[in-house]
Amino acid sequence: MKHRNGEIWEFENHVNSTGGVDFDSDGGVILGLDGGTTSTICICMPVLPFSSSSDLPDPLPILARAAGGCSNHNSVGEAAARDALEQVMAETLVKSGAKHSAVRAVCLGVSGVNHPTDQERVLNWLRDIFPSHVKLYVHNDAVAALASGTFGKLHGCVLIAGTGCIAYGFTEDGKEARAAGAGPVLGDWGSGYGISAQALTAVIRAHDGRGPQTMLTNSILQSLGLSSPDELIGWTYADPSWARIAALVPLVVSCAEAGDQIANKILDDAVQELALDVKAVVKRLCLGGPDGNGSFPVVMVGGVLKANNMWDIGKEVTDCIQKTYPNACPIRPKVEPAVGAALLAWNSLMKETEGNCHDR
Amino acid sequence: MKHRNGEIWEFENHVNSTGGVDFDSDGGVILGLDGGTTSTICICMPVLPFSSSSDLPDPLPILARAAGGCSNHNSVGEAAARDALEQVMAETLVKSGAKHSAVRAVCLGVSGVNHPTDQERVLNWLRDIFPSHVKLYVHNDAVAALASGTFGKLHGCVLIAGTGCIAYGFTEDGKEARAAGAGPVLGDWGSGYGISAQALTAVIRAHDGRGPQTMLTNSILQSLGLSSPDELIGWTYADPSWARIAALVPLVVSCAEAGDQIANKILDDAVQELALDVKAVVKRLCLGGPDGNGSFPVVMVGGVLKANNMWDIGKEVTDCIQKTYPNACPIRPKVEPAVGAALLAWNSLMKETEGNCHDR
Repeated sequence: MKHRNGEIWEFENHVNSTGGVDFDSDGGVILGLDGGTTSTICICMPVLPFSSSSDLPDPLPILARAAGGCSNHNSVGEAAARDALEQVMAETLVKSGAKHSAVRAVCLGVSGVNHPTDQERVLNWLRDIFPSHVKLYVHNDAVAALASGTFGKLHGCVLIAGTGCIAYGFTEDGKEARAAGAGPVLGDWGSGYGISAQALTAVIRAHDGRGPQTMLTNSILQSLGLSSPDELIGWTYADPSWARIAALVPLVVSCAEAGDQIANKILDDAVQELALDVKAVVKRLCLGGPDGNGSFPVVMVGGVLKANNMWDIGKEVTDCIQKTYPNACPIRPKVEPAVGAALLAWNSLMKETEGNCHDR
Repeated sequence: MKHRNGEIWEFENHVNSTGGVDFDSDGGVILGLDGGTTSTICICMPVLPFSSSSDLPDPLPILARAAGGCSNHNSVGEAAARDALEQVMAETLVKSGAKHSAVRAVCLGVSGVNHPTDQERVLNWLRDIFPSHVKLYVHNDAVAALASGTFGKLHGCVLIAGTGCIAYGFTEDGKEARAAGAGPVLGDWGSGYGISAQALTAVIRAHDGRGPQTMLTNSILQSLGLSSPDELIGWTYADPSWARIAALVPLVVSCAEAGDQIANKILDDAVQELALDVKAVVKRLCLGGPDGNGSFPVVMVGGVLKANNMWDIGKEVTDCIQKTYPNACPIRPKVEPAVGAALLAWNSLMKETEGNCHDR
């Protein structure tokens, strides 16, 4: 076992003297991590002695939680991504009071992990940190989001709609498929960015005579402190960050709730797009069975899908999916994706233990 | 008269000895300049002794032409924009063999000049360079493009569709209006960027099961040297330059000509968008008169509007405009926008001379 970063893991030598509980005797701990483009969240939970997710305690006993910087290698490079992952895992263990040697399994859901080569690279980082008996799992962050709604079972489809959007699905026998998640240039129109860009476009079109007037004009200009739609051009050029544009979604929802037809059309279109993302994945994986009437979970994650007072985008997306797949079962997860990652590891550990029992 | 940059204008002292023609005795010269985001073009032409554009010689006697770097202050900052403008004008004069003192008028069409403050700043730069009797005109580059089709008359509408797109119109009594030109975030879907982004989106949608198969997939992947649509995501993230994406337009046209329905739909939509840009401007300026049957020029500029073998986007746009404005008169200019700028200056000079004659 090699410790790549001696300093980060130095607490090891002190943990027992600071009153930390040694989970070794207790079945050990699991680390679950959700690595996104803006931040990385890690949680530590004990290896729970239950054989099925339906037996899990509610709320789950989370021993510790820590947050770190971006761990998407596409955004910050490999060295910084590795440092971010290592740092946040070490901090979580310190907070939990658990020993490094108590770790039984580690599951990472990291954005930017799309190919087997990405997966293998991150696994190699983990192998440098943890002894060989520790179970290591590395997935895309969408997988952790799915697991947060299915209590660690890799089955069904997750729809994430925040600044961007993506649908990701798994069959019980391990096939997977995705739709969207390609960024704004490649038409993720159901994303927060997509909705807001359509709203800004509607304001420009109303202003230069290409489209009908809309409440979005006053709402957006007032919110941004601008006096004319002309100034929106400079505003968008000034900072191309997608999150800054996606932050306008609540204004679009408010205008739609107030009866603005343009805002309603934009949200209706986004609903169709998001439902199509899910339906494309479900169709390719045959999640609804041969007649489409099978039941499967659809986990809904991200700011765009959060319930609003009247205009509930997530509910509309669900309704639209259920027109094709009547037994699609929508789930808004109660736990965060990092917990989903930990549950994924827990689920795999339980399966292996069961397997070992049967082998005997 | 102040010479801001002594070195640039130093050729003055040598020009007669290098055999340059002194146009002083001949009516002098005009500088016309087209300043874009990628390059700046300047031409020098003599002050032609004709009273009407219909009397102008064909081809026009262009004494010299020079090209320089970007002069859009939004892109390169004010100092670099000023240097680019000054440099290219000086080089044009050197090449023409005309003396600095032979300059009668200067007309600049510069992208990024949108507000009176932009105009005033550029005019101040010119006032530092040229003596007070030189007529100075500063416009947006769309104005020079319009003038390139109307022989210097500011009347009608110009539609520019290259990487971006914009429609810009003028009435004979000086009112003006524009549509689109807001960039890709704000929905310039008729632009080269817009067309290509739709094509890339169609490839992704076909790949992940959200849309029908299309010839665009093979055509675009082959052209970019990629083996799977998944790789398009990395390709678009790698370099967000609009021009790089807009360069795919000829592939879309080829696929449409070969009968691909998706490519045809993308071009049909672009035609509607571009025609709407023009119609919005024409309506606001009432260029077609009260019944819409009046005649007015529509100058068509930019790579997207160039004639192709079968699928002629410019012709389709014209047909679409003429359904609403039957006497809209499409013009594909034979001269470049820098010549348009010079003709604009010439036209203004002629008007002033006429005015002076009438005054006598």
